Order: sequence, then structure tokens, then C-alpha cells
Amino acid sequence: MKDVIIIGAGPGGLSAAAWCSELGLETLVLEANRETGGQLLWTHNPVHNHLGATTANGTELRDIFLQQLEPFRFELRLNAKVKAADLANKKIILETGEILTARAIILATGIRRKKLNIGEDKFVGRGLLESGKRDRDTVRGKNVAIIGGGDAACENALILAETATNVTLIHRRQEFRARRDFLEQIAGNPKIKVLTETVVTKIIGKEQIEAIKLCQIIENKSYQIPVSAILLRIGVEPNTEFLGEALRKDKNGYIEINSCGETNLENIYAIGDAANPLSPTVSTAVGMGATAAKVLYSKLNL
Amino acid sequence: MKDVIIIGAGPGGLSAAAWCSELGLETLVLEANRETGGQLLWTHNPVHNHLGATTANGTELRDIFLQQLEPFRFELRLNAKVKAADLANKKIILETGEILTARAIILATGIRRKKLNIGEDKFVGRGLLESGKRDRDTVRGKNVAIIGGGDAACENALILAETATNVTLIHRRQEFRARRDFLEQIAGNPKIKVLTETVVTKIIGKEQIEAIKLCQIIENKSYQIPVSAILLRIGVEPNTEFLGEALRKDKNGYIEINSCGETNLENIYAIGDAANPLSPTVSTAVGMGATAAKVLYSKLNL
Repeated sequence: MKDVIIIGAGPGGLSAAAWCSELGLETLVLEANRETGGQLLWTHNPVHNHLGATTANGTELRDIFLQQLEPFRFELRLNAKVKAADLANKKIILETGEILTARAIILATGIRRKKLNIGEDKFVGRGLLESGKRDRDTVRGKNVAIIGGGDAACENALILAETATNVTLIHRRQEFRARRDFLEQIAGNPKIKVLTETVVTKIIGKEQIEAIKLCQIIENKSYQIPVSAILLRIGVEPNTEFLGEALRKDKNGYIEINSCGETNLENIYAIGDAANPLSPTVSTAVGMGATAAKVLYSKLNL
Repeated sequence: MKDVIIIGAGPGGLSAAAWCSELGLETLVLEANRETGGQLLWTHNPVHNHLGATTANGTELRDIFLQQLEPFRFELRLNAKVKAADLANKKIILETGEILTARAIILATGIRRKKLNIGEDKFVGRGLLESGKRDRDTVRGKNVAIIGGGDAACENALILAETATNVTLIHRRQEFRARRDFLEQIAGNPKIKVLTETVVTKIIGKEQIEAIKLCQIIENKSYQIPVSAILLRIGVEPNTEFLGEALRKDKNGYIEINSCGETNLENIYAIGDAANPLSPTVSTAVGMGATAAKVLYSKLNL
């Protein structure tokens, strides 16, 4: 039996692995993806606000982390998908059927982008964009729709407005929850049109996206606008639905923790985006990884 | 009035300053010392466990942080010592008498090393060492006493045993609370002698340290051993005594926070070592700085 199993090898899981290794704990890291990095792999913008390193994108920062981790000893399993967990008994069941146990478990399962579920998967590579930064050149001379009302939607609207003919920013609420400076820049940009209290009900197109059907929800008025590219930024949700009923979560599924990363279950810790709805940052994840490892070590009575 | 005042410019305070600046908050950072960095300035060992950068010592890491902070806009006042605070009313009183207020306050006041208070200050530069790493060459051929029972005491015993003739590690308790691997190395090192349940009652010497007087507390037996250098590592205590009665602290003076860095007082946050007795790490401080800034921003309703 291992001392510690860490589920997830994003910034939080990797930081926890470094510290567990440093503290002499036998450590296993399970990563569902075929490589480490978590959200860093989908961060195409520069990362400049994690004190320690400034990089051109998330993958570059992940590579710096991996280089630093070389002297540390822990077992890492990639493509290791967790199917279910009995956390009260510290048991983890993999999709292969294998059952793993440990003296302590650190949950670093992260978040995923929410979907509209109106058939958008069909248009991957056919007009459905992945990121403003990555796709800015492909939208040159096109009409683009961005759906969402937070920082990510607004920042991507500004990035894509640099190359697209027109950007329509579509938000289902009246108020945006994005940063002040993004909203001021959007207000001053003639290429960005904002539609509030509006939802996208259908994506129209044969091979490629051709248009979207909208509904203004106050007036209950439906209409259609021509667009050839769409970027979805309607928020995120935590990867926590397979962690069992015994673990305490908030109404949105985020794991509830105290300042030490402790959950309601003994020797079960949670770190990173899955436990930090208000601060999904690299620094918070790295910090909580160190915290959970140190606290866990002090309480395991080795 | 500023949006945010951050007290302390160690890793936590600097990370909070970056994020507050990024979020468009008018930010003032108060640092009691004549330069930024907090505990990093007294870290003479390599820093290899903060994901982002590996450096030869703390000052080097502080310099990387400062370089990253260049694009961020916040006001920094050095030599700004806080005398008292009325945190329920968000008021800070400096030693100069100046009174400052803000919409939110982040406490990043850090910790300090505990003293024995048996006249050791008289021997600064005369046998009282600052750090094993820094002072290893000055103890060549000498008898050294290290006082303490945690990681810092044990790690320094190992470092100084490389050059000193003999190292005596003196601990007032029976059990050491240091990491397993340090204790194993100490047990296997013939140059290190361990005295437990023993306290230092007097430092003897005219110009330089010549000997220390010890008391074995179980047998109540006093005796003297010749040493010409002493390193104190008897633990740390938080810099929180000037923060007023309204702020909730634990029995050791550490500020009590939730997972968002919130204290018991509205819009008063605490981060870093002064709020993390179990995890006084650079990563934890940097992470909590980001967390407090993000949470504060989401709750200030700007």
C-alpha cells in the first residue's frame, strides 16, 4: 500500500507529488490524460501571474515544472482513469477494474469546460474554436460568435476581434461577471457586438458552421445570425461526480475544504480548481499542493 | 482611500500584490524591512520545491519574483512599520503615527525566529551563528552547539557537522519532530552528539562564546560544555501581536482563516506563514496570495 495517492497531475497534483516525495512518502500519481499538466495544456495565453516563472503558454510552464520534478521520486501513471471511489475507506477503483488503496488521498481532479449540448461536438475542426489565442488566424475575415459572460469569454472576444470581421458576444444574463478592464475595452471596440439575455438554441451548418439560432429570453424572440466560427466559454464544472456520496461538496460540485486542504473525510485532501471555485489559478493549485502534503505528513504520524 | 492594503512583502504579499494589480485594484504594500522578500532573505539553502523556479537561495528567488512584478502596478512602501491596527474598522496605524485605511486588508506579516532570551544578542558576530549554510566555513575545527528539535535544527546539524570538529544537538524534549531522513542521517553521523530533555541556561564568554551551561531537566542536573559557536533553531512565532483583539487567532498567535484566506473580520484576509502554522512554504504563501486577491475581488462588488 502506498502512503499517498494523488488523483490528477495538473499544477496542484504535481506540487503535492514534489512535497510528498520530499517528505519521504511513498507516492502514486494517477493522471487520466496521456500527459501531465491539467488545465495548463489548454492555456494558450502567456502565464505571467504565477510567481516563479513567466512563460509564453501553459505547456511551457508545465515543462518547467516537469524539469524541476526530475530529482523527486514518485510513481506516475498516465491514462489512469478513475471510475469510482470509496473515499471513506480510502479505495479507488480504476476503469480497468483495478482497486487501489493508500493511507491518504489527495484529490486534484480539476475542472472541465461546460458544454451547450446542442450538437456542438459535430463541428470540432469545422468552425468550433478551441481558443482565441490559438485560432486567431483561422477567423481572419469571418463572423465569429463567442458565448459566455465571464473573463474567458470577454478576453477571447478581444483577441478574436483583432482578426475577425465581426465578433458577437452572446450572454444569457444581463450583467457580465468579467473584469472591469475587459468590459471597458469591449465597450470601446466597434467590431464587438454584445447580445445580453440571449441564448443559443441551435447551430446551423452542413459541413461547416453557417449560422446560429438565438433566443432573446425576455421578449421570447427567436432569430438567426450568420457566423462561421463559434467559441464557447460558458463556464467550467469540477471533475468530482465519480468521487462518491461521502465526500462533502457545494451545490456546484466543488469539494469543500478548510485552510489546510482537509475535506470532511479523514486523511482525504482536496486541492486545485476542483476545490477552489473562486480562485482557479496556477498559484493557488501549486500552493494547496504544498499545504496538503505538509499537513498530511504532520497528521499521518509516520 | 486604497482598495487594498497588503501588510508584508514576502512571497505571499508579493503574489497578492501581483493579482490585486492585475484585477485593477488600487493597491498599497507595506513592508517593515528595508527590502522585500520576507523569510526568503534568510533562506541560505537552495529553494527547489516551489514549482516555477529552482534557485541557489531565497534571495535569488526573491529577485525572480521582483523581475516578474515589473509590469504590475502597485505602491510599495519600504521601512513602513505597523504599530497597531483596528481591523474591524480597516484602520492601520504606522509607527510614524500615520493612519491608513482601505476597503480590504491582506495580512501577510509572516513569522520570526524565537529567541532563548538568555543574552544571546550580545554574541551576534561573536559565535552566535545565523545559518548553517552561510556559516559552515567559520566553524571549521570548532565545537558547535545547535539548539532545537525540528527540521531546521536537524538540517543545520548535518550541514555544520561537515566542517565542525563536533556538533552537539540540544533539544528540550525527548522526541524530535524533524523529518525521518534527517534523524536517520544524524543517528549515523559520529560527529553529532544528541542531548535530549536538556535546556541551555547560560552562554559563557567574554568577547567570544566559550561555553554553555546546560540542565538535564529530568535529573535536574546542571553542567557545562565548551563550545565556540551556537545556532538557535527553537522554532518560530507569528508577527501578529500588533493586529488587535478583534482578529481571531489560535493559541500560538497564528491567524485563523478559511480555505479562501478569509479571517473572522469582513474584508480582512490573511496569507502566508502567519496564517499557516503547518505549511510555512513559499508555494503556500504564493498560492494564498492569489487566492485572497481573487476572493477579495469577487466579494468587494466593485
